[in-house]
Amino acid sequence: MIYLDHAAATPMSDKVLASMRSYFAEDFFNPSAAYLPAKKVAADYEAAKATIAHAIGGKSHDLVITAGATEANNLALSSILYGGFRKSVTRGLSEVTTENEGANPATAGMSDPSRANAFLNPPILYLATEHDSVRRVAEHCGGEPIRVDRYGRIDLADLQAKITDSTELISVALVNGELGTIQPLSEIAAIIREVRLDRLRRGVRTKLLLHSDASQALTLLDVSVARLGVDLLTLNAAKIYGPKGVGALYVSHEVRLAPQIYGGGQEQGLRSGTENVPGVIGFATAVKEAKAHLNGNRKKYAHFREILLRNLRGCEIINRKHSLDNFVNICYNGIDGERLVFLLEEREIYVATGAACAASKGEKSHVLKALGLTDSEIAGSLRLTLGETNSEEQIIAAAKIINEVVTKEYERIQNG
Amino acid sequence: MIYLDHAAATPMSDKVLASMRSYFAEDFFNPSAAYLPAKKVAADYEAAKATIAHAIGGKSHDLVITAGATEANNLALSSILYGGFRKSVTRGLSEVTTENEGANPATAGMSDPSRANAFLNPPILYLATEHDSVRRVAEHCGGEPIRVDRYGRIDLADLQAKITDSTELISVALVNGELGTIQPLSEIAAIIREVRLDRLRRGVRTKLLLHSDASQALTLLDVSVARLGVDLLTLNAAKIYGPKGVGALYVSHEVRLAPQIYGGGQEQGLRSGTENVPGVIGFATAVKEAKAHLNGNRKKYAHFREILLRNLRGCEIINRKHSLDNFVNICYNGIDGERLVFLLEEREIYVATGAACAASKGEKSHVLKALGLTDSEIAGSLRLTLGETNSEEQIIAAAKIINEVVTKEYERIQNG
Repeated sequence: MIYLDHAAATPMSDKVLASMRSYFAEDFFNPSAAYLPAKKVAADYEAAKATIAHAIGGKSHDLVITAGATEANNLALSSILYGGFRKSVTRGLSEVTTENEGANPATAGMSDPSRANAFLNPPILYLATEHDSVRRVAEHCGGEPIRVDRYGRIDLADLQAKITDSTELISVALVNGELGTIQPLSEIAAIIREVRLDRLRRGVRTKLLLHSDASQALTLLDVSVARLGVDLLTLNAAKIYGPKGVGALYVSHEVRLAPQIYGGGQEQGLRSGTENVPGVIGFATAVKEAKAHLNGNRKKYAHFREILLRNLRGCEIINRKHSLDNFVNICYNGIDGERLVFLLEEREIYVATGAACAASKGEKSHVLKALGLTDSEIAGSLRLTLGETNSEEQIIAAAKIINEVVTKEYERIQNG
Repeated sequence: MIYLDHAAATPMSDKVLASMRSYFAEDFFNPSAAYLPAKKVAADYEAAKATIAHAIGGKSHDLVITAGATEANNLALSSILYGGFRKSVTRGLSEVTTENEGANPATAGMSDPSRANAFLNPPILYLATEHDSVRRVAEHCGGEPIRVDRYGRIDLADLQAKITDSTELISVALVNGELGTIQPLSEIAAIIREVRLDRLRRGVRTKLLLHSDASQALTLLDVSVARLGVDLLTLNAAKIYGPKGVGALYVSHEVRLAPQIYGGGQEQGLRSGTENVPGVIGFATAVKEAKAHLNGNRKKYAHFREILLRNLRGCEIINRKHSLDNFVNICYNGIDGERLVFLLEEREIYVATGAACAASKGEKSHVLKALGLTDSEIAGSLRLTLGETNSEEQIIAAAKIINEVVTKEYERIQNG
């Protein structure tokens, strides 16, 4: 088996599992309980949060632990929706009901463009290539997409043109989950600082926040909230060899957030529910490991990527520039990418056509569309994402097998 | 160590961990991916959901997996809040913002009784003894509490008197988390059926749903959604020797629910986010185990409870009637329960004064208040909850040590 879909899921590392072990059945206590063993668990939990926070230059109490990046993104954007300062938006979302049965309820009532247009001054700007957990919420409050260039990089002029006095939040993923495109967040933050100064001068009191989804970033980038200039940052354990179902939202101490989930008042009242102690312990271990191997990983994946790009034949490279070293997006014009996934599966090579959650619904990638690719280019695209399970031998073998399969497929089409 | 706080947290069982193991690093694939190993994982995930659903007489697609009972309760109640048919309520909640810093942000702006009174016809009725994850949300939309009797059982006459044509949801936990009180849900369901028939006759189109939090129930009760007559049922893995951070909301196919978390469209669009596969596999194992040992557990804990009640001296029993066999709530009038927790901790006996999340905030138990206990009785109360980690010898030893500690404490008070 050669697994080339590390952007969709990563196996939990041995170190992560080892660190979690004692919290399953020995140190299983509820951190809110009053006796000593429970307080020790609470202290371990806080220490783990501190480890995660320090890795991005934050403090333990800046983190709200969530069940993953999707919840963290929703929490970040809902601070605008339900923060008490935008009634019309709240009403907009409240009209969405989803049926339990019926065709594709996920998008039921969610794609009415006329509603989005009803908001003349959208409170949220988001990159056209953002994940659905940002896009769906943003679309609903009349959020406006920002354009990207041929490589998926933000069009800064478009951003500047779209910021109005109503803009409250700008959401741009540090690394795009489908292409690996790295965004120039500090340049975006500089623009935001200018806007803030200008608002201050003119007496405009609306706040402007920068949110970024950094789910894919920690294994290959040195992430610092101060350097990036973000107010809100989403993290995800499941993409960095940590446990599934755990994520976090970094919240700058200057930001007021409205909770989405109410109850026992955990996570400073911002996200209630008994703490997932083993999950957060494992998350912290994964973050530490990522930090420790940052430089080694960068070199390794740059080398692997180089091998792939040198050896793969007959394809166009989609993300030649500005992308994370472990992302290789290619396109075989005239071939059906989904068919390639199945043909490669027979050779025990596992790749994706795009993001897993979009692919499973048979939708065309909105990310590739935003890049301006033709329908035929989109249909023929593959995403190969490298990771811990790969060796140099595997990468060489994979390139060879992909070439074989593609050649056969081109022959089949020509003879058909 | 004698752990008598199984209602706060349970250790994960060996069988649960064994069932999860292969999903950490081998079958780690994203269930939404297109290749065969990922599809196998997706099938295992669905099978696990089916196991959980069957245990309560439901089907796989009736379950929405959440990160725990708190999220499930919020999702159940928010279907009323954001379901598109109660704008004023949405506005009510949107006014709540919580500061990241400052004293007790969990309750900031959440306890203004005047706001609750502003709703003359509350859409939600909830038991006065419900968990904060129901109570806080219900309070905010002007939900009205239903009275309980001396043993924490619902006052059915009070319920009947409070149902109006505006009532849309009634939330009553099957087992109270602090007292173990079992509620007569099928009697409540019978009342609801009458109301529905009456509404139908009179042409009133407002729906009326029954929600129940069954977090504590599965290890000792044979839970069937049909027999209970519920439309929405909350389950929790962490209270039944399963993994932390996993729960579910059963949603009858007749109910339309509005999602709280948007994104990739998982869980039929009702709760997005990459599936926590190991968590749900472990949850299913825990549910199977609970079902398999139901009768044995009932006998065992009834016996343990009997030993405690026979041997404990100088206390009043709070939950003599209608409570789950593993709950023993007692009260030492004139003694400080919190002090008892610490004195018992020194003897390595771990007990609680009430629910962990409430106790940690130093609040007086709203559950014991609802029972009509005096402040002094509430202050002197202890909750002992029995479970898998206990043996008969432990229970006998615990009673003896508790008696010693209490005797000394009474002497100290009399001599001081």
